[in-house]
Amino acid sequence: VDIPSGVYCDGINTDDTKVHADHVLSFQFPKAAFLMRENADFIKSWTAKDIGLHQQGIEKTQADKYLTEEAEIKSWIAPRGRFSHKGTYGHLLVMAGSKGKVGAAQLTLKAALKSGAGLLTAYVPTCAYEIIQLAVPEAMCLTDRHNEVLTDFPDFTAYKTIAIGPGIGTGAQTSKMLELLLNQLNSPTVFDADALNILSKNKGLLKAIPANSILTPHPKEFERLAGKSDNTPDQWEKLKAFSIKYQVITVLKGAYTAVADSAGNIYFNNTGNPGMATGGSGDVLTGVVAGLLVSGYAPIQAARMGVYIHGLAGDLAAAEIGTMSLSASDIVNYLGKAFLTLAH
Amino acid sequence: VDIPSGVYCDGINTDDTKVHADHVLSFQFPKAAFLMRENADFIKSWTAKDIGLHQQGIEKTQADKYLTEEAEIKSWIAPRGRFSHKGTYGHLLVMAGSKGKVGAAQLTLKAALKSGAGLLTAYVPTCAYEIIQLAVPEAMCLTDRHNEVLTDFPDFTAYKTIAIGPGIGTGAQTSKMLELLLNQLNSPTVFDADALNILSKNKGLLKAIPANSILTPHPKEFERLAGKSDNTPDQWEKLKAFSIKYQVITVLKGAYTAVADSAGNIYFNNTGNPGMATGGSGDVLTGVVAGLLVSGYAPIQAARMGVYIHGLAGDLAAAEIGTMSLSASDIVNYLGKAFLTLAH
Amino acid sequence: VDIPSGVYCDGINTDDTKVHADHVLSFQFPKAAFLMRENADFIKSWTAKDIGLHQQGIEKTQADKYLTEEAEIKSWIAPRGRFSHKGTYGHLLVMAGSKGKVGAAQLTLKAALKSGAGLLTAYVPTCAYEIIQLAVPEAMCLTDRHNEVLTDFPDFTAYKTIAIGPGIGTGAQTSKMLELLLNQLNSPTVFDADALNILSKNKGLLKAIPANSILTPHPKEFERLAGKSDNTPDQWEKLKAFSIKYQVITVLKGAYTAVADSAGNIYFNNTGNPGMATGGSGDVLTGVVAGLLVSGYAPIQAARMGVYIHGLAGDLAAAEIGTMSLSASDIVNYLGKAFLTLAH
Amino acid sequence: VDIPSGVYCDGINTDDTKVHADHVLSFQFPKAAFLMRENADFIKSWTAKDIGLHQQGIEKTQADKYLTEEAEIKSWIAPRGRFSHKGTYGHLLVMAGSKGKVGAAQLTLKAALKSGAGLLTAYVPTCAYEIIQLAVPEAMCLTDRHNEVLTDFPDFTAYKTIAIGPGIGTGAQTSKMLELLLNQLNSPTVFDADALNILSKNKGLLKAIPANSILTPHPKEFERLAGKSDNTPDQWEKLKAFSIKYQVITVLKGAYTAVADSAGNIYFNNTGNPGMATGGSGDVLTGVVAGLLVSGYAPIQAARMGVYIHGLAGDLAAAEIGTMSLSASDIVNYLGKAFLTLAH
Repeated sequence: VDIPSGVYCDGINTDDTKVHADHVLSFQFPKAAFLMRENADFIKSWTAKDIGLHQQGIEKTQADKYLTEEAEIKSWIAPRGRFSHKGTYGHLLVMAGSKGKVGAAQLTLKAALKSGAGLLTAYVPTCAYEIIQLAVPEAMCLTDRHNEVLTDFPDFTAYKTIAIGPGIGTGAQTSKMLELLLNQLNSPTVFDADALNILSKNKGLLKAIPANSILTPHPKEFERLAGKSDNTPDQWEKLKAFSIKYQVITVLKGAYTAVADSAGNIYFNNTGNPGMATGGSGDVLTGVVAGLLVSGYAPIQAARMGVYIHGLAGDLAAAEIGTMSLSASDIVNYLGKAFLTLAH
Repeated sequence: VDIPSGVYCDGINTDDTKVHADHVLSFQFPKAAFLMRENADFIKSWTAKDIGLHQQGIEKTQADKYLTEEAEIKSWIAPRGRFSHKGTYGHLLVMAGSKGKVGAAQLTLKAALKSGAGLLTAYVPTCAYEIIQLAVPEAMCLTDRHNEVLTDFPDFTAYKTIAIGPGIGTGAQTSKMLELLLNQLNSPTVFDADALNILSKNKGLLKAIPANSILTPHPKEFERLAGKSDNTPDQWEKLKAFSIKYQVITVLKGAYTAVADSAGNIYFNNTGNPGMATGGSGDVLTGVVAGLLVSGYAPIQAARMGVYIHGLAGDLAAAEIGTMSLSASDIVNYLGKAFLTLAH
Repeated sequence: VDIPSGVYCDGINTDDTKVHADHVLSFQFPKAAFLMRENADFIKSWTAKDIGLHQQGIEKTQADKYLTEEAEIKSWIAPRGRFSHKGTYGHLLVMAGSKGKVGAAQLTLKAALKSGAGLLTAYVPTCAYEIIQLAVPEAMCLTDRHNEVLTDFPDFTAYKTIAIGPGIGTGAQTSKMLELLLNQLNSPTVFDADALNILSKNKGLLKAIPANSILTPHPKEFERLAGKSDNTPDQWEKLKAFSIKYQVITVLKGAYTAVADSAGNIYFNNTGNPGMATGGSGDVLTGVVAGLLVSGYAPIQAARMGVYIHGLAGDLAAAEIGTMSLSASDIVNYLGKAFLTLAH
Repeated sequence: VDIPSGVYCDGINTDDTKVHADHVLSFQFPKAAFLMRENADFIKSWTAKDIGLHQQGIEKTQADKYLTEEAEIKSWIAPRGRFSHKGTYGHLLVMAGSKGKVGAAQLTLKAALKSGAGLLTAYVPTCAYEIIQLAVPEAMCLTDRHNEVLTDFPDFTAYKTIAIGPGIGTGAQTSKMLELLLNQLNSPTVFDADALNILSKNKGLLKAIPANSILTPHPKEFERLAGKSDNTPDQWEKLKAFSIKYQVITVLKGAYTAVADSAGNIYFNNTGNPGMATGGSGDVLTGVVAGLLVSGYAPIQAARMGVYIHGLAGDLAAAEIGTMSLSASDIVNYLGKAFLTLAH
């Protein structure tokens, strides 16, 4: 009850005398400790029970860490207007893929299509042309002059939002392209995967990222961006500092994905399952977040809601397919059901 | 009840003192005002209640605007004859696609296949060859000599019906091709998307459109064809005038898609939902209308029934997939269920 | 009751005084007249009621026309032996496709895969290579040296059965190839579509067809093979004569597909529906018949059972998809259910 | 009851006076004789009934042949840890395919993806590039410099596990490549199909196989590896000897697939059905075994569990699709359900 003896609420206790709890019943809210990988052995599972703390008291209490709840996500969802049209939901440009990693582009595009984007254009290397046109007939497809990697970008004034990164590699020409692109970008953009790796190698570019852009690193990618962490609390501090410094929204992917906003608040996510630890899962998240962003959600909503829906789709898929067989395409296929769950 | 105070039945009232109704219960028939985007805020939803007006009285009342009802669509459906064969249902030629927009061709072909066409041939640029053969194995595929755009057309005496436009672009060679084609066409044809945009740039060509052809513009495309409208009633007047002038059937796509016949009647459609505001939705409609036309329905039936079925398929899809995740391919996948709903 | 007044049992009555029956209740067996397209208006539907005729009497009565019944098809189905392996079910070679008609090859291959073939190899023009490998991963793929048409054939000693024809065209090189192939074939082979059209243009080749081969013409193709018929009874006589003359099994496709064996018996089929009047439906039938033949069924069983199963799959599909939206791929997708229906 | 009179428990009795039993009810355990193809006619089916033999007695009895039971497989399954990530489940390299046999690569990759692999890379000839990227978007794809066959291998230090063989052919360049690869391999690897055929032609290479590698021959392939067997007991002896000699796990595929470990124990499998006697079924098994191995299961567990799950997926598929229509892709599609059956 509350927290296992010997486990700290907010920090890491290296003392080995901690109680190993099969299940922790906590009061009102989960403790931060519950979400740390270091405590996995001491807290096998947990639930938080509402003990009737006064709502005003809760709101007055200063906090910078939150657990996203379904009710909040639901409250954001605006039904589509009867007279809306495909232009209402924005035109998304997805820059993704390189020779051998064209699947990443497919997954991002399919996920964006299933997450509200009105219009969708892919920008890919020449070698991806037929693949993309077949895999995502709803998307238009522009090709770079290079067969294998992205070396250029299209006139992007026609697009409301850009998502860039899945499967692009970190080659010299692609890095140069990203640098030039950053000079011109001026609205929130979604950066993932190799786009983040390029930024890690050229940290000077980080300042050029448009405010309220969304970055979606996994822990290794985040380490390259922000340095090595000693432990989870330290990693969260770095996440906070990084997001404030560059005025971006950073989505640190993991068991309890942490979404930090540019004010330093961290929103943890509790949907999803370890069956989603499979190649391409992150490319799908990029598409979901970008689809929400282009269709009109605010960047922080797109990020938090995208993470929530992505995990929920994975949970719905796992219930029918199991965690062993869950693939990234399955997550895409369950996005519809996940959104339906939240509809009102 | 009836109509919110301050809202006109048939026109636009710019006075801001109108009542905002959550729901309007109307007598016998909906008012035209209910279908206008300008009134979206005053009439959130509506139902029309049969108050027992005398049928003869209804029929004697002159009207040029109708709301399509399921019963009428159902009454048109003729069960297929036991001894009919694939030739009975006609051979459709779909001219669609250009480099980067081959998905449009796929969607139109798949929709036509699911809407009654007996035989199906695609005419596409060379770059689309493998894509079309893989995506639609039931269709035969002819290729233009040009890799990226359509520059020519095949001997079309073998085809009962042609649908042209989705994804073809508006380039010089394609425009020239359309001009030459129009000189030879002499039976009702379906024109969509870039075919309409080419016609808008060369309005002299409009006279060459075969009588009872079906044009399926969205509002922007219609504006290019017929000029800018001040408001919805004005747009409907333009729709009527355009259809009479060129003796065509014009399908003005939108929330309440308006199908105008060459006598100036307008038939509004009440199936469909804003989840269909997504890229490729219109390409699917073109395929549905063309499939119905080639399989033997009269042009006005093909247009009205196509619009109805397309919306119904979207509604059936949305019930299982939700509006956020609804894609054009989903509409295709639910066409079978939609047709089954109407079977008798 | 029995037969509408004025309609002949076995022949065509051009007298216009016949009764138009909505439904005919017949005794013990349907009359041949029920299956003739000329009587479609007089016999809208029919059922045959067992009136207890003596089984011995029935068997003694000489007849050369039969209606295939489910019980007979079921009685042929042998459960697969526990220790059987893929070699037990034979290796089928499908020679199909040409530029623009590669879909025909896909449909035949997919249907054969779903109809019992142990191993499957496609022989297609070069342009079909990637398409076939993607569409049917279970099949191996050999390519002709020609990009667009078949000009040669592989060493076929490795294959138990060959199916040839869907989508191959009737070009000079393909015709020559078929001629050379016929010189070497010595076991029952399935001929369809353009293979039949080539034979029609070179009737001298018909003698080279291996005994008990299966030909699957639609009425137009049969007319090219055997000459124009005055009416349905005349067509059936030609079907009988042709099958006896060339010692083949001829499947004349239509509403009540007629399978004639080399002794002149005709077996009519009563599964299927007019939704199957759609491009590619015949390619699927070729695959089903070839799959059954290669997996060990006798040629006449493969033909009759293939026709029955193909129609049954179409009926199961139509129940969920409707006749308007039924496509050839749908028939393939319901083959499993159809076979399950017959399992015991 | 027990065993049909005249049938030996463990050997082959060529005496023809054996009883033909429709069903055998055996005590506690099935006899080895039940699993031999030579006894198929005498033992049409069987069940083993627990007669309460003392558990300690059972365990003390020396045996080298076991029938795998669901309870044992289930006991191996470890739920995925909450904080695990895609790296936790390993990166698998699949070396497969050649011109015309690219389907084999697809099937192996898809199966591995559905069997727990965290990350997946395909190494294929150039001609397979687009096919693989489209068929398995979750996999990365590296291409050999040769268009049609594998002639080289990538730096494999990045991969935890390699599976090699499906569809690679036995050409000179591929054989040479395998020889060079074997010189460098030092962890358990999965060898199938043509990789085994190459080894059969160069038996000296067998010694280079890393200990605890898994070989998955069908009976013909095993004969090439280990020589012709007189009968099933002799084949089992060869299987045992081969596995001990080369310190590998050998999966002899068939009705009761026999998995021999390097200590000479044989584990028989009782899932699966003769509908799985279809091209590509073995490629799927390779993927399942490799997926389990890379995701952390011990080699003998990966082999036995893979065989069990593969058969179970086939059984679940057959229940809905039937044995006639069961294809290798169907087995892949039911892997999720099969794993769910075993989840706890």
